[in-house]
Amino acid sequence: MKVAISQLNYHVGNIKSNCTKILGAIENAKQNNADLIVFSELSLCGYPPLDLLEKRSLLNETEKYLEIIKNNSNDIGIIVGAPRLNSESGKNLFNSAFFFDNKELVSIVDKTLLPSYDVFDENRYFQANDNFATINYKGEKIALTICEDLWEEQQDIDKFVNKNLYKISPMDILIKENPSLMINIAASPFTSSKNRIRKEVLANKCIKYNLPLIYVNQSGANTDIVFDGNSMVINSKGEVIKQLIDFKEDLQYIETKDINSEAPNERDLKGHIELIHDALVLGLKDYFTKTGFKTATLGLSGGIDSAVVCALAAEALGNENIRVLLLPSQFSSDHSIKDAEDLAKNLNIKYDIVPIKSIYDSFENSLSDIFAGTEFNVAEENIQARIRGTLLMGISNKFGNILLNTTNKSEAAVGYGTLYGDMNGGISLLGDVYKTEVFDLARFINKEREIIPINTIVKPPSAELRPDQKDEDSLPPYDILDYILTEYIEKNTSAEEIIANGYDTETVNRIIHLVNCNEYKRYQIAPTIKVSNKAFGQGRRIPLVAKY
Amino acid sequence: MKVAISQLNYHVGNIKSNCTKILGAIENAKQNNADLIVFSELSLCGYPPLDLLEKRSLLNETEKYLEIIKNNSNDIGIIVGAPRLNSESGKNLFNSAFFFDNKELVSIVDKTLLPSYDVFDENRYFQANDNFATINYKGEKIALTICEDLWEEQQDIDKFVNKNLYKISPMDILIKENPSLMINIAASPFTSSKNRIRKEVLANKCIKYNLPLIYVNQSGANTDIVFDGNSMVINSKGEVIKQLIDFKEDLQYIETKDINSEAPNERDLKGHIELIHDALVLGLKDYFTKTGFKTATLGLSGGIDSAVVCALAAEALGNENIRVLLLPSQFSSDHSIKDAEDLAKNLNIKYDIVPIKSIYDSFENSLSDIFAGTEFNVAEENIQARIRGTLLMGISNKFGNILLNTTNKSEAAVGYGTLYGDMNGGISLLGDVYKTEVFDLARFINKEREIIPINTIVKPPSAELRPDQKDEDSLPPYDILDYILTEYIEKNTSAEEIIANGYDTETVNRIIHLVNCNEYKRYQIAPTIKVSNKAFGQGRRIPLVAKY
Repeated sequence: MKVAISQLNYHVGNIKSNCTKILGAIENAKQNNADLIVFSELSLCGYPPLDLLEKRSLLNETEKYLEIIKNNSNDIGIIVGAPRLNSESGKNLFNSAFFFDNKELVSIVDKTLLPSYDVFDENRYFQANDNFATINYKGEKIALTICEDLWEEQQDIDKFVNKNLYKISPMDILIKENPSLMINIAASPFTSSKNRIRKEVLANKCIKYNLPLIYVNQSGANTDIVFDGNSMVINSKGEVIKQLIDFKEDLQYIETKDINSEAPNERDLKGHIELIHDALVLGLKDYFTKTGFKTATLGLSGGIDSAVVCALAAEALGNENIRVLLLPSQFSSDHSIKDAEDLAKNLNIKYDIVPIKSIYDSFENSLSDIFAGTEFNVAEENIQARIRGTLLMGISNKFGNILLNTTNKSEAAVGYGTLYGDMNGGISLLGDVYKTEVFDLARFINKEREIIPINTIVKPPSAELRPDQKDEDSLPPYDILDYILTEYIEKNTSAEEIIANGYDTETVNRIIHLVNCNEYKRYQIAPTIKVSNKAFGQGRRIPLVAKY
Repeated sequence: MKVAISQLNYHVGNIKSNCTKILGAIENAKQNNADLIVFSELSLCGYPPLDLLEKRSLLNETEKYLEIIKNNSNDIGIIVGAPRLNSESGKNLFNSAFFFDNKELVSIVDKTLLPSYDVFDENRYFQANDNFATINYKGEKIALTICEDLWEEQQDIDKFVNKNLYKISPMDILIKENPSLMINIAASPFTSSKNRIRKEVLANKCIKYNLPLIYVNQSGANTDIVFDGNSMVINSKGEVIKQLIDFKEDLQYIETKDINSEAPNERDLKGHIELIHDALVLGLKDYFTKTGFKTATLGLSGGIDSAVVCALAAEALGNENIRVLLLPSQFSSDHSIKDAEDLAKNLNIKYDIVPIKSIYDSFENSLSDIFAGTEFNVAEENIQARIRGTLLMGISNKFGNILLNTTNKSEAAVGYGTLYGDMNGGISLLGDVYKTEVFDLARFINKEREIIPINTIVKPPSAELRPDQKDEDSLPPYDILDYILTEYIEKNTSAEEIIANGYDTETVNRIIHLVNCNEYKRYQIAPTIKVSNKAFGQGRRIPLVAKY
């Protein structure tokens, strides 16, 4: 049986456009005499559809376009993912795989294990399946599963007890029917460690069940969630014999009877920073493509965060679509302006310099009575940041450029950013990238030529909101800060445990206090492209008024 | 059996403080010779604990304080809600009711039906219970359930199919053991229609099972979620014979053998607007109490939204804790300043007038080259709103006053607000209150004397960001707007259905388009106190880049 593996970039909610893509791939597969074409999980509506699933109109549209897909299944089998009405008690929908052939619906498989952690909320919408059967097709007996159904052994990052997250394993049930092939359709989002883990998990399944696997993921990003593709075919020994491209659409073919005889052919794993780079570029590009915007703006401070965002944006959107402002204040050092200008010139992007002192003076003047007798403090610092935010939003509103947020994860974590100021922006590129990783990204961006000025990389980071301010005056060195943050945010390690690992008690307690008391700022930040195991945003929900 | 019904206001995550409250109520109940005291769902950790439940340290603390509560169960039975470790496969925790007596754990009931819709995400954290037993105690056979377990018949607001949301009914199982009494512990949040519905659902259960019910809810607010209390005792005929106070803590006693002989004693239902008023005042008060802040600020425009927020804040926090700014521009009408001043005087709150023209001129001047050749448009309008936002945040940062957001639900829905401008604020009071309801709230606030100037109520609403601007120049009348919004947002009614109900096609399509294309603004708005069936915020999750 010749199987077409279709790895597409779906636009969430845009069923008509997704269907057009799907029909194009079917046509291609027919011309290549494929017996079966496989699309990924919820391909027709895109992932994650979230509360669009609560709209009956979305389901109606899904049903309409499924009919069209079914009518294109002459001469080819089609497996496509879509929501399906549950007419019995329980949640309204199933998360289903529809199997069409010869213009008929030949089988439906519903998802059993519904991930409900981090960014996943499938229990909110879907009823869990509880009946299981393999599918006979063109000489193969197929065990068809949906994403998590083949990934029931979740890591216990919560350090509670060592146990399975799920009470059943769909594949343990299906194996009793002696299938000849596993097919898994997925919507498996990118994290910088996911590539490696995903391959291990899937390979172990092939070994455990002594079966080959065709694994179909999607590529592309929907707001904060990036899909890295990397669909693959694994033989019964757990060796990857075919791997689709990462971060792009792809269509490849496999002859099932050859899977166990073909030579292993696995790409080398990209490095941590290259993966983050690729995910951010795709995430940004798709944010613009899918919202219909073309041009971006941001403020260049001469610092590393805005430099990295600018370079990534130029790569994702084209330098001609970026317009930046340099917004120096009386506290900006000479090198800041020069570094920012050098970057703009290196990238060949349009920039304007708008000094903020006269606007700041007008604020100071207007507030002089009210602020009389008080010291210069965070209030005046933040006014500068908010003037910059207002000027940048002026560009955004006047010319239709989306403002890019430049906050990194380390500063978002400890609240070193001004709400309604430098935390402004429609999408956050670095909000899930620690400061130490931002430096690595800058070096990666510079690997062929100096795009980001070396001085931007080597000088000590500073917000430049008062004279001679340096980040490390009030924060520990970034490698220590990022270690503490990773443990606390991504692994739920307690202060006591981090201290027991040899970190300074006062530092650890202070950093954790800062993380906790700045939840309110992050609540209002832009959506953040997720690259780590735990990003700020929809996948992390801390009650704001909590004391703990 | 004499039962103490303890309706307390819990602080989420603040286990030590919650435990102290619980112990105080136990002491009171002992002095009143109660046989049993009942606390509400997850009382020890507060509701909703969200991802704090992923911290092992929170569970450790819970276990420690449960031990203390257990050791206070000499001479009294205690039912208290808390998370509990699940050491078998499945989610890490159960949502449990612990029954202590005589310093021993005599029984545990785990929650079966885990709401996962709107603001609820219990499947994210909890494993569902699947074993059931009544509890014999002091001559009663108690069917003890937790919140949703007695509320399995959910309304089908999604218009999918008419069916039950859950596959089982815990009480249908427990009734087979012939219990003599139902006890339900709840964390049932306020909505303006919940009082009525809740009483009906519970009364119907009493009638169905021919059993009396002791229902224990909590009071108080945690960020966006308000608990209205209204714990009650219902007899086997479905009549309320005792009802605890609404929106406050309360402790009352009931002799179980008298439930079916006592006379019905149900409070009159408060009106829709009075309920919203009470919920907002409590929500705001608790936001400040639980975050440890005392003082608030906001801008008074002379319009109705800021006037209503100001009046509610003065009631919740005390007039001496509010400091406001009047921020007139060249487009502000004379009456705006007078109306705002009148309000400040009526409430006896401190105010300053800071005209924004000179700051606006400095922005215009700084942007003159960049904006050269363009027309005055939304860019300039928004700069005014952002100047105001920056000045107000200056007060907030300088004096520690939390900025109150004044956006109402109608304008948040259609995106008639400036991000990083008038959409600023730490907490939104009116973000779930439609404009038509804001007018009603103003009249309600004025019921005894004129607090909000009549002119503020009767003049046509305007953002005053350009000459002679009026809301209704570009929006339909607010009663029509609010109808369309309610249907679309709260009931997922499609455009076609709303039009079929007799509304103008172009208007309906335009409003729905505005709602959809402004999701990005609401993503960054402050947490919003929920009073409707569907508030913007955590309970409504629309993918930002979606097309639908």
